[in-house]
Amino acid sequence: MRSSFNKRLASMCEQKTNSLCIGLDIDPDKMSPGSDKTLRGLELFGKDIIDATIDFCPVYKPNFAFYERFGSKGYAMLENLVSYINNRAIVIADAKRGDIGNTCKQYSSSILDKMGCDAITVSPYMGEDSIIPFIENKTKGVFILAVTSNESAIRIQKHGYSDSPLYKKIIQMGCELNSSNNIGLVIGATKTDMMEDIRELSFGMPWLIPGIGTQGGNLEQALKISSKNGIGLINVSRGILYSGNGTINDIVDSAKKYTNTIREIIWNQIKS
Amino acid sequence: MRSSFNKRLASMCEQKTNSLCIGLDIDPDKMSPGSDKTLRGLELFGKDIIDATIDFCPVYKPNFAFYERFGSKGYAMLENLVSYINNRAIVIADAKRGDIGNTCKQYSSSILDKMGCDAITVSPYMGEDSIIPFIENKTKGVFILAVTSNESAIRIQKHGYSDSPLYKKIIQMGCELNSSNNIGLVIGATKTDMMEDIRELSFGMPWLIPGIGTQGGNLEQALKISSKNGIGLINVSRGILYSGNGTINDIVDSAKKYTNTIREIIWNQIKS
Repeated sequence: MRSSFNKRLASMCEQKTNSLCIGLDIDPDKMSPGSDKTLRGLELFGKDIIDATIDFCPVYKPNFAFYERFGSKGYAMLENLVSYINNRAIVIADAKRGDIGNTCKQYSSSILDKMGCDAITVSPYMGEDSIIPFIENKTKGVFILAVTSNESAIRIQKHGYSDSPLYKKIIQMGCELNSSNNIGLVIGATKTDMMEDIRELSFGMPWLIPGIGTQGGNLEQALKISSKNGIGLINVSRGILYSGNGTINDIVDSAKKYTNTIREIIWNQIKS
Repeated sequence: MRSSFNKRLASMCEQKTNSLCIGLDIDPDKMSPGSDKTLRGLELFGKDIIDATIDFCPVYKPNFAFYERFGSKGYAMLENLVSYINNRAIVIADAKRGDIGNTCKQYSSSILDKMGCDAITVSPYMGEDSIIPFIENKTKGVFILAVTSNESAIRIQKHGYSDSPLYKKIIQMGCELNSSNNIGLVIGATKTDMMEDIRELSFGMPWLIPGIGTQGGNLEQALKISSKNGIGLINVSRGILYSGNGTINDIVDSAKKYTNTIREIIWNQIKS
């Protein structure tokens, strides 16, 4: 019997002693001038990044927008990259889907079964109908958007009574649905002031934490608080893929730097 | 200078004296046993439906899940269908996207510019950041999820004080952003008890109304209330595509029946 998604995730992070998630948002506009910016070139760039980091990186997260921008050919490139990873790391499809149940079944079949991603990010606005089809197979997981890193989100996500803002209801819904241990939450790294509270509410659910780097989130605080109980996946996209001169060496250096920072923080936390 | 999306929509509906929106959710599992269920067969089925209804149908709405389920090849089929419609009707991409601004720019470029859809459905959970990139070109539009037709949505969408539930905040956000007259709302046909109130709050913004047919929404009430001020697009997917024996004749009959019902309701409303 295969393990639940959250157990598989924890075991992959343990195996690589790392909770870095590399955001595979390949963007020709940001690549160094001499790069091959054809679709074939972008795919090879993606594979080079994977080759150079997979020994120590437990999780990759392609954001679908960066592939769909090239239409069906971009979608095919994404399929190739996921298949290239081939279970050597966890793949989170950052697709932020959310629809009625009948429709989410199609997304689940497409992204988790056919494309073979391990988990998907989902938007909770349509309620639990839009989450259930993704968690029926316990080996696959979802990360529900709870508190996102962008500025304008708070107007919506804090809506309601001050002691029961919307995001708390979403977290509660996540807990209720988590009987197969395959649900996690998206918690933006820019929202450190809310994290202690959220860690308590979300019990041991894993967090996917975007917003480090370009968006200005605080890695140390986010990692310390999240990993008090569960996994805190530190997602870095632009801060790794386009660091320095954008060569593979620069990318690996940056990914290793983040890895070392993560290991030090966790090590010090265990020792303290 | 080209018109705003909402004006283009109104003009297309006027030209065809109809506010039917056919949901192009092509699903081989529901097609009649003898049908050609290869991807080529599904694409031809889609084109046959378009050919047989485009003279009187002003709007088509493909739900992306039903194409993405076939991976990159399904995505290519969707591109072909949108290009086949070729401005003879309005195409609403039912993709329910929602992400940070930088990412939504990619979705907007992919779905509105490259694929050529006229509008897209968006999820409001991440706030206005996730809507603005889609409305920068005033000839293209968005339909923001406000009150959806599925049962579990209400727990989230009514969250908050009883006089300021979340959906009202979303509608208000839509109004604030609507300075180029290219925003509409998704209002589920199953929520007729809330519609009078919503029509008042949403001024003349068009509504996209799913939930008729299989989901049990009330066409007459939804259309009467929505069209008091603005367009109420009546979306029917399964109720048209898989009616009768699923032949093209059955499909056209069903689409014409819905069209006649819509025309009668609007006619009687104007006369009363």
